[in-house]
Amino acid sequence: MQITLQELADHLSGQVIGDPSVRIQGLGTLDNAREGEITFLANPKYAHKVETTNATAVILPGKADPFGHNAIVVASPYLAFAMLMTLFASKPRIARGVMEGAFVDKGATIGKEVTVYPGTYIADRVRIGDRVTLHPNVTLYEGVVIGDDVTLHAGVSVREGCRLGNRVTIHNGTIIGADGFGYAPNGQAWFKIPQIGIVIINDDVEIGANTTIDRAALETTRIGRGTKIDNLVQVAHNCVIGEDCMIVAQTGIAGSSTLGNHVTLGGQVAIIDHLQIGDNAMISGQSGVVSNVAPGAVLSGTPAIPHLARLKASAIFPQLPGMRKLLAKHEKRLAAVEERFAPASLK
Amino acid sequence: MQITLQELADHLSGQVIGDPSVRIQGLGTLDNAREGEITFLANPKYAHKVETTNATAVILPGKADPFGHNAIVVASPYLAFAMLMTLFASKPRIARGVMEGAFVDKGATIGKEVTVYPGTYIADRVRIGDRVTLHPNVTLYEGVVIGDDVTLHAGVSVREGCRLGNRVTIHNGTIIGADGFGYAPNGQAWFKIPQIGIVIINDDVEIGANTTIDRAALETTRIGRGTKIDNLVQVAHNCVIGEDCMIVAQTGIAGSSTLGNHVTLGGQVAIIDHLQIGDNAMISGQSGVVSNVAPGAVLSGTPAIPHLARLKASAIFPQLPGMRKLLAKHEKRLAAVEERFAPASLK
Amino acid sequence: MQITLQELADHLSGQVIGDPSVRIQGLGTLDNAREGEITFLANPKYAHKVETTNATAVILPGKADPFGHNAIVVASPYLAFAMLMTLFASKPRIARGVMEGAFVDKGATIGKEVTVYPGTYIADRVRIGDRVTLHPNVTLYEGVVIGDDVTLHAGVSVREGCRLGNRVTIHNGTIIGADGFGYAPNGQAWFKIPQIGIVIINDDVEIGANTTIDRAALETTRIGRGTKIDNLVQVAHNCVIGEDCMIVAQTGIAGSSTLGNHVTLGGQVAIIDHLQIGDNAMISGQSGVVSNVAPGAVLSGTPAIPHLARLKASAIFPQLPGMRKLLAKHEKRLAAVEERFAPASLK
Repeated sequence: MQITLQELADHLSGQVIGDPSVRIQGLGTLDNAREGEITFLANPKYAHKVETTNATAVILPGKADPFGHNAIVVASPYLAFAMLMTLFASKPRIARGVMEGAFVDKGATIGKEVTVYPGTYIADRVRIGDRVTLHPNVTLYEGVVIGDDVTLHAGVSVREGCRLGNRVTIHNGTIIGADGFGYAPNGQAWFKIPQIGIVIINDDVEIGANTTIDRAALETTRIGRGTKIDNLVQVAHNCVIGEDCMIVAQTGIAGSSTLGNHVTLGGQVAIIDHLQIGDNAMISGQSGVVSNVAPGAVLSGTPAIPHLARLKASAIFPQLPGMRKLLAKHEKRLAAVEERFAPASLK
Repeated sequence: MQITLQELADHLSGQVIGDPSVRIQGLGTLDNAREGEITFLANPKYAHKVETTNATAVILPGKADPFGHNAIVVASPYLAFAMLMTLFASKPRIARGVMEGAFVDKGATIGKEVTVYPGTYIADRVRIGDRVTLHPNVTLYEGVVIGDDVTLHAGVSVREGCRLGNRVTIHNGTIIGADGFGYAPNGQAWFKIPQIGIVIINDDVEIGANTTIDRAALETTRIGRGTKIDNLVQVAHNCVIGEDCMIVAQTGIAGSSTLGNHVTLGGQVAIIDHLQIGDNAMISGQSGVVSNVAPGAVLSGTPAIPHLARLKASAIFPQLPGMRKLLAKHEKRLAAVEERFAPASLK
Repeated sequence: MQITLQELADHLSGQVIGDPSVRIQGLGTLDNAREGEITFLANPKYAHKVETTNATAVILPGKADPFGHNAIVVASPYLAFAMLMTLFASKPRIARGVMEGAFVDKGATIGKEVTVYPGTYIADRVRIGDRVTLHPNVTLYEGVVIGDDVTLHAGVSVREGCRLGNRVTIHNGTIIGADGFGYAPNGQAWFKIPQIGIVIINDDVEIGANTTIDRAALETTRIGRGTKIDNLVQVAHNCVIGEDCMIVAQTGIAGSSTLGNHVTLGGQVAIIDHLQIGDNAMISGQSGVVSNVAPGAVLSGTPAIPHLARLKASAIFPQLPGMRKLLAKHEKRLAAVEERFAPASLK
């Protein structure tokens, strides 16, 4: 694939500096790009590398020096580079149909231009849209509904009755709709609460590998449009996750908690059950959230408190032993002062 | 399915208020139940919703006001509702036998009325009981033993020689009996310690999705009768978990630790190796347990301490910067007082 | 298998005490070993058990008392016992070839003496070495390269273009090369950054169950020779892990961080992105590392600080409420003292 710098600039809604007709055939980093390739400057601290890069062109933010290179000036070079990677990396999709070794129940309905690899099982009453790719060893239980342009990687399970929207991608080994963890105490033993709800995953959601999203007890566990979930994340039953959230690896969200839109959860965060996390909240990695979170709040630690307060307190924490010693000394010195200057009449 | 209120009350060992002959055909929440359905009041703070529910009957605790509704009075409405969900949700199990596309070694022994889905592999010397369901893409290694009425969901692996009791349910992607993490230092490199023990899972255990329970080095990793384990939990080699424990998602238990009976571990808890956790202990989410735990203890934090003490200390933690400043001021003021009132003879 | 004590001592480079011709046919613990078996003493606190063991011989460190038993004296009894377990536990490997029910694309290349179980899928342009075992339901995407003597357990996925060295073992359900978690903000929504790099896993690496190692965005996520990774670990895109590292269960390493050689990470550790962790560093379980770590450092806590400092501060932490009260009292008492002894002229 070859394309002119002007064509790329048009694709990125950017401005060309230098020769708009120069041809670009690939991408590289500032350090490793070669002639014929385009690179990008996202972090200002690497601005000096623009001078020495071998790239034929550079994507730059507004005020950066091109050092004589051809360039495209855009608002967000990082986003622009992602768009170019998508342009250069995308390959035409070739539908292979239902391959030998795949098992499709005769009660299932399958759309056009699908690819279903060997070892994949599609149960009764499943409905699958167009241009869907099911990699090997995927299991779709009874009544699952899958939209168009969905990709499920090897080993994904979607349990009975769960529904995925359009353009959903789920990476390997992720489990959608296993039973929520619900038991009622019955003396010493635990009585299982049937989990008869489902999971609904809306359009444009991407979910990483070996993540688990449990079905609701009665109603719906829901992942909102455009939300991105990393690997090894746990979303418990009845959770409702908003749109365009970003949930980093190994985070766990307990039952019935809700996230607003554009919430960010760092890695290994825990959210306890039945909480409401407001729009645009950001929770730092390893935090434990134990009460509702206001929109736009930036929290960290366990229990989570405002991030700056946490940073300040954490900085003092290693001084605790010294503080305790000083406090004990003050106690003695204060007592000595008080003793010395007790009212004369009491002496 | 239709059933009278009296029949439901008998099933629940409860007392009818109102019309015992009214017919119930389903379940709903206080908010969403419709005519012909029964709902329940578990949390007293929702007692006012009983007045406005559209349900035909309500399951109530002893002293709640039925607001004129038909009702069943029971000791635990939550347990009672779970029992009704089980009653209404259960479907007759239809055995489909060993389906085409399943692979069963000729040295395996399989019970009656089983269902073995395509893509499932059963190795030599495996023994499987009656009424077992093996969903697609399950793998049973050599010598595995499975009891009666067991359900293994898609993608479960049970490694060589491990044994499952009766009425065990394991959700998708969970791995029973992978090698424990054991290496002996050999200079800079690590020499693998063969993991030749097994895992035994006793009756009535349920395990969530993508959990891992490692085989013992020499002897047995054991999960006690009735214990419930959530998703993405790690149980390391040689652990012995008691009966009726409750282990929430993303918790990890390191090698050779033992849990008594009815222990509760919140989400993302870590238990270090070679510990003993007493009966009925409760460990709060995200805690890190680094020493033995007495029966009935309620701990939290890392390192875990009594929960109330942790709550109190955590509430003070954000004040650390202010405390340190005050301490520094006291130091100056004390020195000033001491200087001012030093013995006149020393001046 | 029967072997003389002298032959075992030669294998272990150890010294025989007692009868070198006695025959050993198995292994056991100090408590449970029977006649004809050999056991070992690794922890000095169990030295008294040597007296009462029923084992025919004992592996001992230099100065331990054999209590009249036959013995082999070695530098590291733990390592020696691991070597004997390997000796006794190893079985001859029987290659079963590509079994019926496995799916191998005609563009794949497969070495000698392999075993490929049913349900495993091998895509176009995959290259597999000699003596490889692929358990059921493994998926190798296009262009994957696998060395010699590799074992992949059931449910493992290796994504497009990733490469494994020789003598690599990966346990069940682990995912190599799923997409890294990379998105560029595009207004409120997230624009996916194509993840077009790969994962390279070097020789002698062992990886536990349900772990995830993401492919790089552009270049290579790399696991160094001899490193051991436990279950449910997350290694994000672009990470470079050194040689002979030890990474315990449920730990997460964020994007582009690098570990030196022989680094140890305890369970549930979090390493944030773009950090460098020096050779031989040790990070305690549940720690959160938020800045670079010097070689040989021993850290714990979140944020991670030197382990001893953490221990001391954590021991004081529960006293915070008392410290705050004492501080408030000091404030009052100091004010009283200051008031009482204010300069007479001001009274």
